[in-house]
Amino acid sequence: MKAVIPYKKTCAKSRLSPVLSQEEREEFVELMLNQVIDTLLEAGIKTIDILSPSIYGLENMKKANVLLDKSDLNEALNRYLEQAEEPVLIVMADLPLLSPDHVKGITSTKEDLCIAPGKGGGTNILFIKNPSEYKVKYYGSSFLTHCLIAEKTEQSIEIYDSFLAGTDMDEPEDLVELLIHGSRATKEYINEKFRLETSRGRVRLAPI
Amino acid sequence: MKAVIPYKKTCAKSRLSPVLSQEEREEFVELMLNQVIDTLLEAGIKTIDILSPSIYGLENMKKANVLLDKSDLNEALNRYLEQAEEPVLIVMADLPLLSPDHVKGITSTKEDLCIAPGKGGGTNILFIKNPSEYKVKYYGSSFLTHCLIAEKTEQSIEIYDSFLAGTDMDEPEDLVELLIHGSRATKEYINEKFRLETSRGRVRLAPI
Repeated sequence: MKAVIPYKKTCAKSRLSPVLSQEEREEFVELMLNQVIDTLLEAGIKTIDILSPSIYGLENMKKANVLLDKSDLNEALNRYLEQAEEPVLIVMADLPLLSPDHVKGITSTKEDLCIAPGKGGGTNILFIKNPSEYKVKYYGSSFLTHCLIAEKTEQSIEIYDSFLAGTDMDEPEDLVELLIHGSRATKEYINEKFRLETSRGRVRLAPI
Repeated sequence: MKAVIPYKKTCAKSRLSPVLSQEEREEFVELMLNQVIDTLLEAGIKTIDILSPSIYGLENMKKANVLLDKSDLNEALNRYLEQAEEPVLIVMADLPLLSPDHVKGITSTKEDLCIAPGKGGGTNILFIKNPSEYKVKYYGSSFLTHCLIAEKTEQSIEIYDSFLAGTDMDEPEDLVELLIHGSRATKEYINEKFRLETSRGRVRLAPI
């Protein structure tokens, strides 16, 4: 089994631009990437590939292999899957709440595939036992799309139901979850800049 | 063990007012309440109490007991806990993605308490084995508060990590999750009024 993390540092996370500058967003995605890699390593995953259109921010990466592919995310990932000769775990780089137990839970599925849905129809993690028989299609409602591709190719799929693995960092409200449920460098980074603002509704983000 | 569902139909769910009228919101909360009750019944919970400040919308309730208490949510719930002589499961009424398996998982905890966090620091479900020794404090960042109360009263707590149990219906984006992951009457109700609008970011809600 091996893991692949799609990654792009340049101009990352534009939907966080209302609260973080471009420089801060680039710092934050780098911290998240490193935390996800550490989580995978702690879960016992030995081969970790980072799939990126650019070497920017990965010049000194030692904990994982860097594979450069300038094509679109889906094209690059599907080429990766075609060439893979073992099960593949696709993990998004923006999951600082992911724990080694989640990774172990997902990769020990009895089904052909295991998917951890993200907020708003996304696919945060996808474990594929037979990568040459599956194609991914990220963007849009990719969770439903990936379930449909499983059905069409007659592969069974487990839905991994986790609040923490389901929380990717895309929008300011997601940083609230990091402050509440997070740990380590990513939480510390956000904790230096924001505090929780409580009212009768959901907790919101407020600058310090 | 018994379950209690705090409920208020009048002017419910004001944060859904950008997309649903007051009449629609009241219809929707009634559907959600019924679905939560059915889920609890399917999980084998025999005593279900609805704690409400008013009989409005509960005039014909047959599946659960109706307890009227005009006080504030926390005051009413803490009075309920004080008088309880068995473990209590507090379930919010706006959890249409909750399944019997979640309920069984939560109530089979080995700890003194089990909490299912909601989005934005909320507490969606709280299972309390020794109700006379615990007080709740909803609103604000109640998830953190409830963990802290557990610590102060020296009671152990399990955090129940579920995307589906963690998704309460408070804001328009939550209805997206209902369309993607939901089922039965609540999904059908929202499905008649909205469709999913996909772009490169998260899926959004669009009127039909």
